[in-house]
Amino acid sequence: MADVMAEEARRASRVAQGLDAELRTRALFEIADALEKNEGRILEENAKDLEAAKDMDILPATLQRLKLKDGKIAQLAKGIRSLAESGDPVGRVLRRTQVAEGLQLEQVSAPLGVLLIIFEARPDALPQIAALSIRSGNGLLLKGGKEAAHSNKVIHSVVADAIERAGLPRSLVGLVTSRDEIKDLLSMNHLIDLVIPRGSNQLVTYIQSNTKIPVLGHADGVCHIYVDKEADLSKVLKIVVDSKVDYPAACNAAETVLFHRGCTEGGDSSVVAKSLAALRSEGVKVNGGPKAAKELGLPPAPKPKHEYGDLEVTVEIVESQQEAIDFIHGNGSGHTECIITESQSAADDFLKRVDSACVHHNASTRFSDGFRYGLGAEVGISTSRIHARGPVGVDGLLTTRWLMRGSGNIVNKDQDIEYTHTSLPF
Amino acid sequence: MADVMAEEARRASRVAQGLDAELRTRALFEIADALEKNEGRILEENAKDLEAAKDMDILPATLQRLKLKDGKIAQLAKGIRSLAESGDPVGRVLRRTQVAEGLQLEQVSAPLGVLLIIFEARPDALPQIAALSIRSGNGLLLKGGKEAAHSNKVIHSVVADAIERAGLPRSLVGLVTSRDEIKDLLSMNHLIDLVIPRGSNQLVTYIQSNTKIPVLGHADGVCHIYVDKEADLSKVLKIVVDSKVDYPAACNAAETVLFHRGCTEGGDSSVVAKSLAALRSEGVKVNGGPKAAKELGLPPAPKPKHEYGDLEVTVEIVESQQEAIDFIHGNGSGHTECIITESQSAADDFLKRVDSACVHHNASTRFSDGFRYGLGAEVGISTSRIHARGPVGVDGLLTTRWLMRGSGNIVNKDQDIEYTHTSLPF
Repeated sequence: MADVMAEEARRASRVAQGLDAELRTRALFEIADALEKNEGRILEENAKDLEAAKDMDILPATLQRLKLKDGKIAQLAKGIRSLAESGDPVGRVLRRTQVAEGLQLEQVSAPLGVLLIIFEARPDALPQIAALSIRSGNGLLLKGGKEAAHSNKVIHSVVADAIERAGLPRSLVGLVTSRDEIKDLLSMNHLIDLVIPRGSNQLVTYIQSNTKIPVLGHADGVCHIYVDKEADLSKVLKIVVDSKVDYPAACNAAETVLFHRGCTEGGDSSVVAKSLAALRSEGVKVNGGPKAAKELGLPPAPKPKHEYGDLEVTVEIVESQQEAIDFIHGNGSGHTECIITESQSAADDFLKRVDSACVHHNASTRFSDGFRYGLGAEVGISTSRIHARGPVGVDGLLTTRWLMRGSGNIVNKDQDIEYTHTSLPF
Repeated sequence: MADVMAEEARRASRVAQGLDAELRTRALFEIADALEKNEGRILEENAKDLEAAKDMDILPATLQRLKLKDGKIAQLAKGIRSLAESGDPVGRVLRRTQVAEGLQLEQVSAPLGVLLIIFEARPDALPQIAALSIRSGNGLLLKGGKEAAHSNKVIHSVVADAIERAGLPRSLVGLVTSRDEIKDLLSMNHLIDLVIPRGSNQLVTYIQSNTKIPVLGHADGVCHIYVDKEADLSKVLKIVVDSKVDYPAACNAAETVLFHRGCTEGGDSSVVAKSLAALRSEGVKVNGGPKAAKELGLPPAPKPKHEYGDLEVTVEIVESQQEAIDFIHGNGSGHTECIITESQSAADDFLKRVDSACVHHNASTRFSDGFRYGLGAEVGISTSRIHARGPVGVDGLLTTRWLMRGSGNIVNKDQDIEYTHTSLPF
């Protein structure tokens, strides 16, 4: 079943790509309108899911994400309209070259093909991701959790009707409701080009370990702050607290703070002492790595690489910036790291050498996010190095094609052709 | 063994990235010089491989590729010097944004990490790929075939000595000579970021089916030419012959020519008849798809998707451009397709809608190649949609990092920050 849907989604994506971009824009406006018009129906179905969830073994946090709160539909519609107004990302010229006399080459952006989104709870993810997928001309398969079955079904039918009203094939966005399991979907690497998981670390880890399809996402976010000996105390207190406390469950929250040995000088008024006091005053439990546990009398941290996802943090002392960087490379997840320092050379060295998706100087780790980075709608945050790294916007759903325009040119063993390879404006 | 080498290669890559780019440039010049200085030694070892190959079950074509021909070393050295002079691709700014007051964001190019190249025969691939890898700051593991063991060993030691002379860690380029099998290497997806196979279709298919590491390459190249009814006869004859005959074993050679029904009009002087005559005069055997076999009396082609890799071609008649495009999507490998037509609208439609890595208008399929496209040294041609598509130059060995420079900025639930998200020049 799902394999047929994947083939239909690819066909629909090719149809969508061939039609005027205006139709995809129109589909987005239709979806936004339809969500608002059908708010009552959608909330009724959502209530059924919430009712059924009482009999399931569901965590309170999941239940929270399952509920479509007041104003959510209006907010979704607004986001989709803004995406509709953002212009077409497909077919943009990225490079133009005069290859030889009468022979021109262009590299243009193109849809990836067929995306598979696997999400848990959050029915609001469905229209958001469908909108991103339509904007980028891709075919989409959606596989939601059974806890949101009613909500997903009604939202999908509202979205598919709107796509059809805009003149696009409704199979562009397919909801997998058949009994195909995630495992079966993950084996369709000849039909699906990219999987985007939206859910728990366990879900992401399971997907990463069970498919050959490229996965856009991250299983964990073990972000570090390194406080240099030349750090400004007021910046340290602000950034350390914000990175941990602003939203402790987020992947870009800090889990470990490394202090340079110099920060321990000064007793109760040392940078370390003041930082720990500031964290504790916000309710953060502070654990220590081996050195910090011993020297600062902290309870020992569980292990060097640990994502608390809560108001808890590991602190450690390092003797040098090199030790800090080695610690990060050895124990990080390559997500986001930050240095706090007033030394330009220390900052430059850290930004040049730390091998993570996002490296910040004197700015909270919490900034590493598609919206805050200014990428518009966020597809996800990738800790993979292939295709897209860090916060990913709609660009992460695109690939490129090469278009060559000639006048009867042939290669003939490169005997009679003079390659010019001049860059042309575009 | 190989896992230790992979970890060392990553460490070396991080060291190389932290050092001045000048050192990587110097390493390339050192390698070029060393190859020339050691030509005698290298050719001696190559002769041992050729001697040993006599007792192995090796195809004549493989034997051809195993031999380092006269002038090959000089040619390699020249290519590596030109790469050395081409400038550093690492750390280039790709995007710069003013996020908020006192908060700036840059996206910069960065090495992918650790590459694994698996190659058969061709010992000349070793220094070429090592040079591309060093240029892009990556760590590299090389796994060559046992038929080239002597050649690979001496070339690797020449290359590693040169890297060390330039002041870089010699573990940047590791030759896997242990008994680790390809299967073991392919399971190291936590240590290796990209596999690049250089060898037969069978090797590539085996690798694609047996690893979770992203593979840059293509198993087959089933390229199509579509001859529109408004095609210019002289261009048809030139392009059809060149696409098939210039180098029939290449992945970008044409395997199938689709003629619009209109091309069959005119009996012996029809476009089809003249094209078949031109192909046959070059020694090409012409087979027919179902319609062409029947109507033109051609021997039936094996199957619609068939890579001959030889002087043989499939011809078929289509009733419309839509049928041609559907045929290509149904039977192609997404590599390279060409339309021959004088109609601008037919060409635009084909270039917009054909979902392949390279789509040409009035230009031979043989142009789809990194050198001819002007990308400099070629890493390979990718028919995957993720990361890199079509001919791939050194850019395909890079990823990006996000660097943020602040002045103590925090998120604090986005309450007190005004996002500007202005693009800055770079």
